[in-house]
Amino acid sequence: MTLPRPIQWTGTGAVRLLDQTALPDDERYLDITTVAAMREAIASLRVRGAPLIGIAAAIGVTLAPAGGAGSTLENVRAACDELDAARPTAVNLRWALDRMRRCAEVAAAGDEPMAPALRAEAQAIWDDDRAMCDRIGEAGAGLIADGDVVLTHCNAGALATGGIGTALAPVYLTHRRGRRVTVVVDETRPLLQGSRLTAWELGRAGIPYTVIADGMAAARLRLGDVRCVLVGAARIATNGDVANKIGTYGLALAARAHGVPFYVAAPRSTVDFAAADGGAIPIEQRAAGEVRGFRGAVSTPAGAEVWNPAFDVTPAELVTGYLTDAGLLAARELGRLAPLPELAVR
Amino acid sequence: MTLPRPIQWTGTGAVRLLDQTALPDDERYLDITTVAAMREAIASLRVRGAPLIGIAAAIGVTLAPAGGAGSTLENVRAACDELDAARPTAVNLRWALDRMRRCAEVAAAGDEPMAPALRAEAQAIWDDDRAMCDRIGEAGAGLIADGDVVLTHCNAGALATGGIGTALAPVYLTHRRGRRVTVVVDETRPLLQGSRLTAWELGRAGIPYTVIADGMAAARLRLGDVRCVLVGAARIATNGDVANKIGTYGLALAARAHGVPFYVAAPRSTVDFAAADGGAIPIEQRAAGEVRGFRGAVSTPAGAEVWNPAFDVTPAELVTGYLTDAGLLAARELGRLAPLPELAVR
Repeated sequence: MTLPRPIQWTGTGAVRLLDQTALPDDERYLDITTVAAMREAIASLRVRGAPLIGIAAAIGVTLAPAGGAGSTLENVRAACDELDAARPTAVNLRWALDRMRRCAEVAAAGDEPMAPALRAEAQAIWDDDRAMCDRIGEAGAGLIADGDVVLTHCNAGALATGGIGTALAPVYLTHRRGRRVTVVVDETRPLLQGSRLTAWELGRAGIPYTVIADGMAAARLRLGDVRCVLVGAARIATNGDVANKIGTYGLALAARAHGVPFYVAAPRSTVDFAAADGGAIPIEQRAAGEVRGFRGAVSTPAGAEVWNPAFDVTPAELVTGYLTDAGLLAARELGRLAPLPELAVR
Repeated sequence: MTLPRPIQWTGTGAVRLLDQTALPDDERYLDITTVAAMREAIASLRVRGAPLIGIAAAIGVTLAPAGGAGSTLENVRAACDELDAARPTAVNLRWALDRMRRCAEVAAAGDEPMAPALRAEAQAIWDDDRAMCDRIGEAGAGLIADGDVVLTHCNAGALATGGIGTALAPVYLTHRRGRRVTVVVDETRPLLQGSRLTAWELGRAGIPYTVIADGMAAARLRLGDVRCVLVGAARIATNGDVANKIGTYGLALAARAHGVPFYVAAPRSTVDFAAADGGAIPIEQRAAGEVRGFRGAVSTPAGAEVWNPAFDVTPAELVTGYLTDAGLLAARELGRLAPLPELAVR
């Protein structure tokens, strides 16, 4: 099973990113050497997916200049601030940068060499995420029987994480164990992360899939052959409300109407312990051009007014369960993830 | 208020169609001179919208050869069969062609000149549709107060009919009467009839609109400012189940979840008195390329499997009411449209 590598160390101080805006037709890699370039890559979705954004930002911090205009610690703090502002909704970004800030402060206080400490911390964030993906897969694999069809929205796969994905982790484990599984993939307008990214990585892994337009999901669920819906999350409030890619909420309503279980898969770094409910989650509004067309193909009259929220909030009551690195949880159990101090968000 | 003219007589025996596949960036007209060309225009959605398909097919019949290889009546029947197969779901197509067949048979039996009889019947079908649009507008205009926001899916406007539209007819009447109304427009993947066509005709008419991706509708309804949802129909079963553009069903579920009234606007030619419920309505499956991209912009891996039903069925229990040429009806009242013999479908 071949999974993509959306981020890699180059060994020469740069970070190699798979430019996800060029997929599926062009597998192009970018070598990132500055904090500003990493911020641009995150803001423009060259690297995306809540867990992977956290990893990319952490690695981005290792690109902060040592000394120069300011002290290294000042530069690290400035890098964290710069990266923190790249996207507002995914809480993993803030969480990973908080880990990097604390690492830098500890290194500075102990007079340790900063660069290896930052690099080790970024690698630890990545390794943690990879391990959490595996555990999410285990938490969900039992939901999928041989021959099942599951439906997903956006991309919460290997391209969105440091490992085998979140929503797709149970799919990959099922496939690896020799059981057949087919994935119905919402194309996920406006940026088509489903048809461009999820379809691409499933195809590489040899897993059959069917792409549908987002508006087809309700009709597809009505056919009765979808075992469950699996989606990722950009941020989860402590009551279980989930901010995820726009379209998730309507999909959850359709799943409820047809009695199809609806699971949210996410590592604990996605839970915002400061958000009591979905109303506390900031929703990113993105540029009008994303809705006005696609890759130069115009689909609206010139200057058309559009509305383009990148995420919506699915209320906890529509979520059957949460596939986390701590197992399959109910909404009321999310709070018990809180006590781990190294994972708390500021 | 400037409305488009999607179909016109040329005065030289041809029929001029606005090629809707080229909108919104190119306002291109095609002169159609053969039945085969009209069939192609219908099948490829150069002319679309259930009522307009009926009108276009009727006018297409007037292009059947007089005599030649067969008798004129035989040629008319062959033309009807050819046009009938262009698209399977919109019942108006069958209904209009039945009127044309009967007209030809009556003319042949009475030894009347065929060409003027066919032309008069096609014009009558068009005139009937225009009048029905006006009555649909009257049936719905009272639902919209000054300053209201309504939401629509696909295009059920002037570009879909011989008049001021079905779902958009109440919007146009509201605007004409000096009341402000804003339309939220689902882009309507895969063929984007919302962002390409509805936005274009509303813009020409001076009515403000906001385009959203289909997956944003549930989040938009949650904001609470949408007064009602207005959609058209490709076919309505006698129990009130509605086949309409794919995505309508999910939208109806979202409207129900938020208590937003959901109206289906259609002339009585859209009611299939032979269909007891939605299960009896054939659903057109269209080519994979429509989902795989848009106008040359690729959005899936090469050869991706897709599912592409052009329509879905919204069950009657999700429909607040039917805006028809006989007024605002409940599902149980649709049957009383049946007795009109000239409108019965075979």
